[in-house]
Amino acid sequence: MAHKIGRQTIVIDSPVSVSGSAAVGGKKEGEGPIGADFDFINEDSRFGEKTWEKAESKMQELASAAAVKKSGITMPEVDFIFAGDLLNQCIASAFSARKTKVPYIGLYGACSTFAEAVGLAAVFADGTAKHCIACASSHFCSAERQYRFPLEYGGQRPPSAQWTATAAGAAVISAKEKPPYVKAVCFGTVEDLGINDQNNMGAAMAPAAASTLSQFFRDTYTDPTDYDLILTGDLGAVGAELLQKLMEKEGFPLGKNYDDCGLMLFDREKQQVESGASGCGCSAAVISGHILPKLRCGELKKVLAVSTGALMSPTSVQQGETIPGVAHLVCFSSEKGGIF
Amino acid sequence: MAHKIGRQTIVIDSPVSVSGSAAVGGKKEGEGPIGADFDFINEDSRFGEKTWEKAESKMQELASAAAVKKSGITMPEVDFIFAGDLLNQCIASAFSARKTKVPYIGLYGACSTFAEAVGLAAVFADGTAKHCIACASSHFCSAERQYRFPLEYGGQRPPSAQWTATAAGAAVISAKEKPPYVKAVCFGTVEDLGINDQNNMGAAMAPAAASTLSQFFRDTYTDPTDYDLILTGDLGAVGAELLQKLMEKEGFPLGKNYDDCGLMLFDREKQQVESGASGCGCSAAVISGHILPKLRCGELKKVLAVSTGALMSPTSVQQGETIPGVAHLVCFSSEKGGIF
Repeated sequence: MAHKIGRQTIVIDSPVSVSGSAAVGGKKEGEGPIGADFDFINEDSRFGEKTWEKAESKMQELASAAAVKKSGITMPEVDFIFAGDLLNQCIASAFSARKTKVPYIGLYGACSTFAEAVGLAAVFADGTAKHCIACASSHFCSAERQYRFPLEYGGQRPPSAQWTATAAGAAVISAKEKPPYVKAVCFGTVEDLGINDQNNMGAAMAPAAASTLSQFFRDTYTDPTDYDLILTGDLGAVGAELLQKLMEKEGFPLGKNYDDCGLMLFDREKQQVESGASGCGCSAAVISGHILPKLRCGELKKVLAVSTGALMSPTSVQQGETIPGVAHLVCFSSEKGGIF
Repeated sequence: MAHKIGRQTIVIDSPVSVSGSAAVGGKKEGEGPIGADFDFINEDSRFGEKTWEKAESKMQELASAAAVKKSGITMPEVDFIFAGDLLNQCIASAFSARKTKVPYIGLYGACSTFAEAVGLAAVFADGTAKHCIACASSHFCSAERQYRFPLEYGGQRPPSAQWTATAAGAAVISAKEKPPYVKAVCFGTVEDLGINDQNNMGAAMAPAAASTLSQFFRDTYTDPTDYDLILTGDLGAVGAELLQKLMEKEGFPLGKNYDDCGLMLFDREKQQVESGASGCGCSAAVISGHILPKLRCGELKKVLAVSTGALMSPTSVQQGETIPGVAHLVCFSSEKGGIF
C-alpha cells in the first residue's frame, strides 16, 4: 500500500508498473530530435477533425488506445482514467474519455498534469485498481488562440517564450511485475516568486520544480547522483538554467544528468521555438514516447520525471496576478528492487 | 486499504472520517432555506476582493481554513489538498492553495468536483495520508461572465436554466475514528445522451447521475431503500425529474428519500432561480454545511451524495458538440460499521 514518507513523498509499495505507453504528435514534433519515438504523427495537426480542439481530443484518444494496446489489455479492463489538458474546462480530456466508458477522474495541473495523473494512477494501482490510464495533451493552435492571440495574427515572440507542443502522451499504470516501475511520487506545493510575465513561463515554474525536487531528496535521503536522469517537464532554456541555480542553493546541484523535456522535443536552432517546448503534451509525450521505453529496456535505470505547471489564466494575468507554479514528481525505475 | 468491488465502486476499509467541514456563501445563498448552515456569508459577494475571480479564491481559503479549524488540526498538518472550480484553468483553487504550502492536486470535474475531491481524499486517507482537504467553489458573477454574458447585459433566462451558486465547501477527510465516515466512493463514466442546450444542464447531467447511482447499487448489492438520503449535486427541477424517470427504468426507483442540492440551496419561488442552483459550490456547500453536520449528530445515518458535472465549454458548444455529463458518488455513514 502506498505510504507517505517525510513531508510530501509517497512510496509505492507493491509492484506498480507502466505496462504500456504511447505518444502522439503533430508535424513539427515529428520533425524534432525525438520524432522517431512518436507512435503516431499527423501531418496537418488536425487529426481528421474540423477544429483544433477536437483534434486535441483525438490525440488523447489515439495515445490512450495505443498505450492500452501495448499493455496487452483492452479498454474495458481499465479501471480509471486520470487525464487533463490546458483547454478551458479541460474539454480535450472529457470528450476523449466519453468514448471509453471507463470511470473518468478529470485533472487540472496545467503542464504538470502528466506527472499528476501518473502519480494518482500509481497510488490507485498500489492496491485499489489493476489498470489506470494517465493521459495529458496540448495543441499549439488551440492553446495559442485561447491564451494569446488568434493564430492568424502571427504576433512576435520574445526569446523567453515557449512553443506549446502539439502532442499527447498516455501511460497505462498497472498492478503488475513488469519494468519500468513507479517507485514513488511527490505531489508539489504551489510556489510563487512573483513572476508576472506570461512570456516567461519557465521562470514562473522553476521555483516549483526546485521545491518539489529538493523536498523529494530530503524525504528520501537521496540526492541527484542517485539517478541516471532528472527530467523536468517544460522549463525551457530560461527555466532550466534558473532551476539549476536554485538547486545549487538548495544544496542539491543537478549535474550533467539533468535535462528538460522542453529542450528535447524540438531543435531550438532549426525549429524556431525560442526557449523550448511547453504544454501538458510536452512532458506527456517525451516521457511516454522517449523515456519510458528506455527504462523498459534498461538503458535508463532510475529516473525522476518532474512535470511543471504554470497556474494562470488570461483572466488572472489581466487582473494583475503573479504566476504561481506547481510541480509533481514521479520516480521511475527499471528494476523492482527498492531505491530508498 | 481501499479496494474495488464490482465495476466501479471503491470500498474504504479503514475508518476514514470527515473530521471537519465548512461552507461559505454569498448574500443570496444566505437568504435561502439553508442560509443558517453557512459558516460565513458575505453581503456583497466580493469577500473584500477587487474582482469576482479573486473573491472565489477567497471563498475557498475561508472554507478550507474553517474546515481545518473544526477538525482540530492546523494547515501544516494537512497532507494534500484536492480542489477544483469552474474558472478557466481553475485559478480559484490554485490561488487559494498557494497560501497553504500544502501539496496541491488540482481537479476539474465541472460541478462534480466536490465528490471527486472527497472520493480521492478518502482513497488517500485509507492508508496513505492522515488528513486531506477536499474543496470546490463557484461564483455566480465569475461563472456568468465566463460562460454566458457580461453581468451587466441582464439576459433573459429560460425556465430550465440554473443559477450558479456563489459558494464554497470544504471538508477535511482524515484517517480517524469519528463520525461521519466515508464508506465508499464511485467515480463515474462520461455519459452523453445528446443534449446540446446549455440552458438545460440538468438534462445533460441526469444520465450521468443515473449511470453512477445504478452502477453503485449493482456493485454493492444495495438499493435506494438502504439509504436515508440520496442526494444529487445540482440537477435542478428539470434534471431531478429526469433522473427519477431514468432510475425507475434502471430498476432502482429513488422514492421519497431523494433530493437535489440544486433544489435545497434557494427558494425557487421567492429567489427567481428558475430550475434551481448549480455550480461546483452548490453541492460542496450543501454537503459541507447542511448534510455532514446531520450525519455527525446521527440525524442522518446513510447518505449517498452524487455531485454531477456538465463537461462543456463555450468553445465546445460553439463547435456544435453535445454536452456530456459525469457524476461521482460518495457514500457517507454516521456509523463505523459496514453497510455492504
